[in-house]
Amino acid sequence: MGDDAALFRPKLGHETILTCDWFLEGTHFLREKHPPDAVGWKCLARAVSDVAAMGGIPRCFLLSLALPDSYTGRWLDLFLGGLRRASRRFQCALAGGDTTQRNEILINVTVVAEVRAGSAVLRSGARAGDVIYTSGRLGEAELGLRIVRRSQRASSKKNPLTRKHLYPEPRLALGQWLVKRGLATAMMDLSDGLSSDLPRLCAASAVGAFVEEANIPQVRSPDVALKHGHDPIHLALHGGDDYELLFTVPPRKAKLLPKNFKGVGLTAIGRITRERELLVLVEDGHAKQLRPLGWDPFRKKQ
Amino acid sequence: MGDDAALFRPKLGHETILTCDWFLEGTHFLREKHPPDAVGWKCLARAVSDVAAMGGIPRCFLLSLALPDSYTGRWLDLFLGGLRRASRRFQCALAGGDTTQRNEILINVTVVAEVRAGSAVLRSGARAGDVIYTSGRLGEAELGLRIVRRSQRASSKKNPLTRKHLYPEPRLALGQWLVKRGLATAMMDLSDGLSSDLPRLCAASAVGAFVEEANIPQVRSPDVALKHGHDPIHLALHGGDDYELLFTVPPRKAKLLPKNFKGVGLTAIGRITRERELLVLVEDGHAKQLRPLGWDPFRKKQ
Repeated sequence: MGDDAALFRPKLGHETILTCDWFLEGTHFLREKHPPDAVGWKCLARAVSDVAAMGGIPRCFLLSLALPDSYTGRWLDLFLGGLRRASRRFQCALAGGDTTQRNEILINVTVVAEVRAGSAVLRSGARAGDVIYTSGRLGEAELGLRIVRRSQRASSKKNPLTRKHLYPEPRLALGQWLVKRGLATAMMDLSDGLSSDLPRLCAASAVGAFVEEANIPQVRSPDVALKHGHDPIHLALHGGDDYELLFTVPPRKAKLLPKNFKGVGLTAIGRITRERELLVLVEDGHAKQLRPLGWDPFRKKQ
Repeated sequence: MGDDAALFRPKLGHETILTCDWFLEGTHFLREKHPPDAVGWKCLARAVSDVAAMGGIPRCFLLSLALPDSYTGRWLDLFLGGLRRASRRFQCALAGGDTTQRNEILINVTVVAEVRAGSAVLRSGARAGDVIYTSGRLGEAELGLRIVRRSQRASSKKNPLTRKHLYPEPRLALGQWLVKRGLATAMMDLSDGLSSDLPRLCAASAVGAFVEEANIPQVRSPDVALKHGHDPIHLALHGGDDYELLFTVPPRKAKLLPKNFKGVGLTAIGRITRERELLVLVEDGHAKQLRPLGWDPFRKKQ
């Protein structure tokens, strides 16, 4: 710290994982609605989630921060508090960065991690017949975002409905365990929604997929979702920001997977297919094409 | 590329250098005045300069880019052209990144580099009596910026007065040579101006400095500077963006330094002192306190 750059000594026999993520006011969070503490936690959690998706172990991170002058006081203290908690939780130390003055809050985080050489799980390893799994429940973060957006004031850390949106927990332990046991053939994290991310995994692996809607683990509070006018299955298919792991397992190894890992559910939601199509079996028995309606910053608004 | 994160295998016996840099429209460049090709070159050159300042060898970089929708065509092509030229010149390959849509052009670059374990030169190694050196000429980039700002249209690559501002050349070969020969005790790059950066080197080393104004290598075209109303010595002391190396050498090793290294001048500008003061000997023989008037994004405008 304090030098032009940070130095770190890589572990012998390991590869270095590098990932970076934007976290921008207006695009990824709202200054008035998102507690600074959650902004600090989440900017690191999102980048660490990319490491979890490779089965890596975080080492350190660089923080690039641009702030309005008036945000260098209390806002910054709370932001750094959330960042510090995340840094401790993920065992990922601040190694350096760059700060500047700006009228909007701009954040970019680079995470450096390690994985035993040759053992990282990529998106490209899925084979026809593999079982598709997801961790946790899908759509909870999207429901949380909608509640945050609608609320009059900054959200509390305690609310279980908004917690997953504000303080996501990257699935580091699960990713590392899957790599250690050699169970996953392909893996990625769900950041933009299942309907956007599954096609990316399939494209990288040159395969297709068949998913059963009824099997997708949905929000814990479907009644709350429906009350707010949100269809739980729509949230589960297209909601972003869940930071759960999406991974594929060869059928003969699928029986080695527990129903849940350290309290996080593991659910088989479908199969990888040779045909390069993405089909979803809906409740009424029809097989529909899966359309990517998740988060895409360059998609034209409809 | 295409995965959640990039993987790279560190060389045995080497440490990894990490550095990141903002390059933001309005703060670091102007959309209308700076050619997109120069924006591409410079966003990487600035970050690579931090590597040069440690004597490191660039390996790869991550690019985080936020762009208006209307800039994904021609502007992006030209930007990527400049970036590609810089990437080849510095032998630093694009390894990954993150892109998003935004009304302003935001860039963040992380560079990963390597240096033989234990041999990186930090800011903190300067000792009383060491000779202070700078490479190249100081103030040329600042003069270039002022010409770019004043000009009616985007600047040409050919103009030698603006070239240093638009297409800076990080001093990689010099930094690596100084490390290999064990000549420098402390080193940093001059990004914010001598009057801002020298105090940082001194603070990190817990020393002071005495600089002779007459020895500071100034712009090649003092007449042009004066014609535009800029004092060459003011440009040299306070102008930013030169990306020259500032380094200290023990007196008994100073004779091993050539007058220039691969066409880049090396000039002794002063001495490190035990007293923690920064003094500059001006032309009339007075020793004045050196005041930091270089670039500082959080300094209040006067």
